[in-house]
Amino acid sequence: MSQPARKILIKDGPVIVLVEPQLGENIGMVARAMANFGLSELRLVNPRDGWPNEKARSAASRADHVIDAVSVHSTLGEAIGDLQFVCATTARSREMIKPVLGPTEAATRLREMHIAKARCGVLFGRERWGLENDEILLCDAIVTFPVNPAFASLNIAQAVLLMSYEWMKTADMPAPFGEAIIPAKRENVAALVEHVIASLDETSYFHPPEKRERMEQTIRSILTRPGFSDPEIRTLRGVVASLERRWLKKAGKQPD
Amino acid sequence: MSQPARKILIKDGPVIVLVEPQLGENIGMVARAMANFGLSELRLVNPRDGWPNEKARSAASRADHVIDAVSVHSTLGEAIGDLQFVCATTARSREMIKPVLGPTEAATRLREMHIAKARCGVLFGRERWGLENDEILLCDAIVTFPVNPAFASLNIAQAVLLMSYEWMKTADMPAPFGEAIIPAKRENVAALVEHVIASLDETSYFHPPEKRERMEQTIRSILTRPGFSDPEIRTLRGVVASLERRWLKKAGKQPD
Repeated sequence: MSQPARKILIKDGPVIVLVEPQLGENIGMVARAMANFGLSELRLVNPRDGWPNEKARSAASRADHVIDAVSVHSTLGEAIGDLQFVCATTARSREMIKPVLGPTEAATRLREMHIAKARCGVLFGRERWGLENDEILLCDAIVTFPVNPAFASLNIAQAVLLMSYEWMKTADMPAPFGEAIIPAKRENVAALVEHVIASLDETSYFHPPEKRERMEQTIRSILTRPGFSDPEIRTLRGVVASLERRWLKKAGKQPD
Repeated sequence: MSQPARKILIKDGPVIVLVEPQLGENIGMVARAMANFGLSELRLVNPRDGWPNEKARSAASRADHVIDAVSVHSTLGEAIGDLQFVCATTARSREMIKPVLGPTEAATRLREMHIAKARCGVLFGRERWGLENDEILLCDAIVTFPVNPAFASLNIAQAVLLMSYEWMKTADMPAPFGEAIIPAKRENVAALVEHVIASLDETSYFHPPEKRERMEQTIRSILTRPGFSDPEIRTLRGVVASLERRWLKKAGKQPD
């Protein structure tokens, strides 16, 4: 007698990050949609009702391997710090200098990065108002869904379902020719941004003060968009450090 | 001052047919998913809790134009009688001689037929056990979704969402070259099948009686699969009528 075929549980692919999700049911349905299409790592940034959440487990309909592995984070920066390529899903286009991808293109990019061993993630915003601009700034690309203009209300579980489904569809995608440039971890990009801002703080760059926040955002955006690799980041930090030293010297101070 | 842009409500595309849906919530979520991606015509075959259904309206989250236009049918044959190209969604492959399509291919075929002015539909089965084989037999093609083998439990609202989304993605598809063969309405195919079976009943074809159901299914399958056009169906019915007359003559009877 032949053995019954064992069903393989696929557990792979991008991390799904929910920013400040409100309803446990939605978290559970997200977990289920992920499991349907072979994703397994779910991270939550400040879930409103805390964690663990029994409503989430119940709505996950036995996607327990996803629920059991959920991690909770207090900031988005922490939640995506170890990731190297991150897409932000948004309902409407934003006035930002970021590539805007459809779900199919985004899945293809994610698969390319995944094949090149880069850790990837996809962000989904709050039920009511999605992601803030400064959250989107931390990402490499924006994903929007082609919806009916007059009836565009996709909920987060539906959006995760579509993105997970597009991911699964790329499963047989061949490895691309040539070497992919693997972006640095987000935390290394963040460190570069902080380094540049700290250096500029020693100058009169941030003037007038009420423009500071906007100016910081611009710098963050410019340094995030290229998807710098770790060697590139190291070079850039060397450049900044060198400029700092020059400035300190000019000011008659000795660098540390 | 410029006028605010009016958002166009897209209402177009294949009919969605739910066979014996049980939960009003699911019917509502199906309506919402359809509205998200521009579909608008929903037909129900024997919904368990009758119709109208307040839970369905509530779960539809303001997709009232879909809910208001729902039609209810007592048989699947009636629900799809006026359609010309019909896909059946199934969770597992069946041993049937039908083309099996992925959702993207199915959406492409549906769009081709739609551009050629054929009325199209997509069937979704019961929450618990999907579609029966004799229901699938009435369709032109089977659609299956690429899911995680060990976690394949898509619910009907999710399945409708994915199919509607794939439909929306084909919106910019160019018209194909050449003339498409437009299949006849399903009711005309059904009439051909009944005609052939009635004719065979005058012979000793259905023997032994316990094999009759299976033999009828085979005939239905063979005559449904080609997607005969109306002129082809007329020709075939002429052929059958002619054979009948010959048989009746041989038996010494006069045809009506």
